[in-house]
Amino acid sequence: MASREHRTSHTVDVEVRYAETDQMGVVHHANYLVWFELARTGLCALSGHDYPSIEKAGYLILVTEAELRYHRGARYGDRVQVEVWLDRLESRGLRFSYEVRRAGERLAAGRTHHLWVEAGTGQVCRIPSPWKEAFAGLRR
Amino acid sequence: MASREHRTSHTVDVEVRYAETDQMGVVHHANYLVWFELARTGLCALSGHDYPSIEKAGYLILVTEAELRYHRGARYGDRVQVEVWLDRLESRGLRFSYEVRRAGERLAAGRTHHLWVEAGTGQVCRIPSPWKEAFAGLRR
Amino acid sequence: MASREHRTSHTVDVEVRYAETDQMGVVHHANYLVWFELARTGLCALSGHDYPSIEKAGYLILVTEAELRYHRGARYGDRVQVEVWLDRLESRGLRFSYEVRRAGERLAAGRTHHLWVEAGTGQVCRIPSPWKEAFAGLRR
Amino acid sequence: MASREHRTSHTVDVEVRYAETDQMGVVHHANYLVWFELARTGLCALSGHDYPSIEKAGYLILVTEAELRYHRGARYGDRVQVEVWLDRLESRGLRFSYEVRRAGERLAAGRTHHLWVEAGTGQVCRIPSPWKEAFAGLRR
Repeated sequence: MASREHRTSHTVDVEVRYAETDQMGVVHHANYLVWFELARTGLCALSGHDYPSIEKAGYLILVTEAELRYHRGARYGDRVQVEVWLDRLESRGLRFSYEVRRAGERLAAGRTHHLWVEAGTGQVCRIPSPWKEAFAGLRR
Repeated sequence: MASREHRTSHTVDVEVRYAETDQMGVVHHANYLVWFELARTGLCALSGHDYPSIEKAGYLILVTEAELRYHRGARYGDRVQVEVWLDRLESRGLRFSYEVRRAGERLAAGRTHHLWVEAGTGQVCRIPSPWKEAFAGLRR
Repeated sequence: MASREHRTSHTVDVEVRYAETDQMGVVHHANYLVWFELARTGLCALSGHDYPSIEKAGYLILVTEAELRYHRGARYGDRVQVEVWLDRLESRGLRFSYEVRRAGERLAAGRTHHLWVEAGTGQVCRIPSPWKEAFAGLRR
Repeated sequence: MASREHRTSHTVDVEVRYAETDQMGVVHHANYLVWFELARTGLCALSGHDYPSIEKAGYLILVTEAELRYHRGARYGDRVQVEVWLDRLESRGLRFSYEVRRAGERLAAGRTHHLWVEAGTGQVCRIPSPWKEAFAGLRR
């Protein structure tokens, strides 16, 4: 957790949508992956190279693993904060961590692993410049 | 409605998913458009030219209008039947109608309008052969 | 359209989510209903009686009809504005209209019809005070 | 894996929906959690006590953790098989494992952890009879 103070993180504020709830009266658990992605989009933009531009350049960042822990349910009417940070940068992959909070209380946490892929061939590849450096910048 | 006896329709059987419900305890109204599309996919396949092959050939069928009427809510645990038929075929467009039923009772009905588009240019175009004939076959 | 100048409307700013796109590269058409609902939630809050409090008081506002027209597709990376206004208020029902815009360009428009229902009995009922007055206030 | 031969598993056949794809041209990764749930619903029904009846009896089965590994993307036009089995039964919790396959090829795998909760109080509780026995039957 010490490293957390030094990381660059990004937090998005999300208003719970009615359609995101299920008959249990809370947000359906699959939607947290959608929120994670929304936060990740913002973090990528912070690096100076937003995700749409990565796809336009002919690359994809595939999700290869995801882990989620659910502590308390978000509800319609809530605003939640979704924080994301890059917690591992490898030659071909990235790992992001997430926390979802409501008024400071942790509702959920998670992690997603990604591989960098050439869209044309579908082959995993090294993260090319200038993205490698841009993502490295998020680790400081 | 008389014409209905003569039409080719397609019915898919859908098991309601928990994720499709909302906190009202019924299926969220946006999901009916997803069910319509699932039924439409099956009807296109019936024509002998399934929708994935249309996209592979370089065309898109854009949705330009949708209308829905909701009579009763579908619930988790239900199986519903979604029937679709082509109720209008124009030179550049198609209109499909839908009924969603549970044990014969009508839950919802709707209609979607579509235009045929060249994927490369984004231009609306005439429905080319052999699809034109294939869709015409669904009108008999 | 003249009346539009006098209406109370509410506009929400929505960042397109990756999960909202489909393989056509644009936002899947069902998501517009979800955006409409998000805007409607904000408009209800403007009336001074937010939607969660209506449900807590034992009422539901059922969607009975929806109409959508799609002009241009929203894309990942876009921010869109969703405007909603109450265009009809009846003793037991409401009708809302919507416009989705990107940088002033209209992407989609729509309308939803709703009935006021007692959650306990499932019966349609007159819109009770103080909501009737609150919604009437949105018509000025 | 040896134990796998002795387990009771349930497999559902899922037709990929257009709305489930994203602009990468494959099924968006959040939908696998929805498919897992659909398969789990079927497995619960196999136990003789379907999930809707558990909620009617005043209980909820909360998702507390989920893990997913993505190997290959499912595509529109695919039919996939989602297999689920109960791989751990505790006094208050359950853990399910999943595999998603297309023509025998593994596309994804995962696991979800759940706690049994009294809906009225929101308290975690022991899995009561007759469900405890019913779930135990799935372990043979």
